[in-house]
Amino acid sequence: MNVLLVYAHPEPQSLNGSIRDFMVDRFVRAGHVVEVSDLYAMRWKANLDAEDFPQRDATQPFRASADSKRAFAEGAQTADVAAEQQKLRRADLVIFQFPLWWFSMPAIMKGWFDRVYAYGFAYGVGEHSEKRWGERYGEGVFKGKRAMLVVTTGGWAEHYSERGINGPIDDLLFPIQHGALFYPGFDVLPPFVVYKSSAMDATRHNETLGALAERLDNAMQAAPIAYRSQNRGDYLIPALTLKPGLSADRIGFALHRSEEKSQILPVEVSEEDESKQKMRA
Amino acid sequence: MNVLLVYAHPEPQSLNGSIRDFMVDRFVRAGHVVEVSDLYAMRWKANLDAEDFPQRDATQPFRASADSKRAFAEGAQTADVAAEQQKLRRADLVIFQFPLWWFSMPAIMKGWFDRVYAYGFAYGVGEHSEKRWGERYGEGVFKGKRAMLVVTTGGWAEHYSERGINGPIDDLLFPIQHGALFYPGFDVLPPFVVYKSSAMDATRHNETLGALAERLDNAMQAAPIAYRSQNRGDYLIPALTLKPGLSADRIGFALHRSEEKSQILPVEVSEEDESKQKMRA
Repeated sequence: MNVLLVYAHPEPQSLNGSIRDFMVDRFVRAGHVVEVSDLYAMRWKANLDAEDFPQRDATQPFRASADSKRAFAEGAQTADVAAEQQKLRRADLVIFQFPLWWFSMPAIMKGWFDRVYAYGFAYGVGEHSEKRWGERYGEGVFKGKRAMLVVTTGGWAEHYSERGINGPIDDLLFPIQHGALFYPGFDVLPPFVVYKSSAMDATRHNETLGALAERLDNAMQAAPIAYRSQNRGDYLIPALTLKPGLSADRIGFALHRSEEKSQILPVEVSEEDESKQKMRA
Repeated sequence: MNVLLVYAHPEPQSLNGSIRDFMVDRFVRAGHVVEVSDLYAMRWKANLDAEDFPQRDATQPFRASADSKRAFAEGAQTADVAAEQQKLRRADLVIFQFPLWWFSMPAIMKGWFDRVYAYGFAYGVGEHSEKRWGERYGEGVFKGKRAMLVVTTGGWAEHYSERGINGPIDDLLFPIQHGALFYPGFDVLPPFVVYKSSAMDATRHNETLGALAERLDNAMQAAPIAYRSQNRGDYLIPALTLKPGLSADRIGFALHRSEEKSQILPVEVSEEDESKQKMRA
């Protein structure tokens, strides 16, 4: 398969650098083709602005959506953006790797989404009617592809647990996983999170890479997060609120996961992961 | 009072541009001093990297936290970062205004947090012991100051409601409001959100500015979001999980708000806001 690794860390000689190298090596040894978008090394332009649309009418005010739509439709995007879109089209699996800074992505990766996710490519796609509200949340350009976050945090696992002060990690990542990955059609795998990244000894480093290897090896078989598809009947259209009776006992982001248990991870992988997470905590 | 407006939109002739101008005018007329950090106009450098620390030992790997700590302590930060920190020190109220792109800030504003929030300034502050875990979440450099988000979205209010497909707006903004504003000590006011920004006629524009004016006029009196302070007894230390029994009937981010109703907004303002929000919806 084809793997794209979108990677945002400023220092190759870092925990993130070693995890990146491990992942690339693991995929290549398994016979996969890996492309890496190393955003810092590429000196990726983070800020979406009028300069991204060199053929626009500069006498008119800049409109991010309208200018993006026109440039995408007319093949008038900048080369860096078009190249990332081509990498995405080639990929079967896309991994986004970054350190959690202020509970989100580093700016350079946010700017990758802001610029690469053009109107007509990742949003503003499909019919809007009484039955459908565009191709999004389960449909879209990335339908059939899988995505996964690989994240490091300075904080402890408990601080990101169900009752931890930072908020549950799954909820903190929801704007990315649901809003930026499931939205344009990716099946989103559970994230791989490395806590306490600044206190990593050799033993825990090895355990972490071992657990990660299992996740990578099973990436195309493992169950994705069971987010609800927008256009398959769970939501009222156009209000796009979850229909009464569904997830009636839940609040917040948890509403948007299906109540059924669909696929289950292979038992040995799941238990292994859990025991290692406990050791890390 | 002193107001700092941190503003991220690439086009002055936009809804965001008109809201910014309105806010500046409103504050100035009321006799306040306003500074604006117009990040696009300043061509703000978004990407935190080794170039932010010109005096660092370039023979050593770059460490974002350690290099930030040293530069902050030694007065060796870049001038753009030091200037933003001075603006923050002067401010009584800080407003962050931006369009919601992929359910978060534009990259240029994320890069403002990544770079301005130095180690020793906004994090890594204070004693870590069995009773305290640093000065954060209710304590910190911005203690006594207030902050508020002013956000525009293309989506409808219903899509961001309690059962809306995008997730509740308060939860989507939690990583910013709790993680980046309450964390270093701000009292965080409820956000002012303008939905359906691309379908704004003159009537709704005027209503929106009217509702915003009331929020600005009451910014120093209104009740902030009742997030729980870290070091006042609600959390176990160092696990930093909410103590058993507190918010026992809640899950997710809602855990971290106090159950008591502390201050209440003046009735006339609260009702006015609500009716206008319904009209917008």
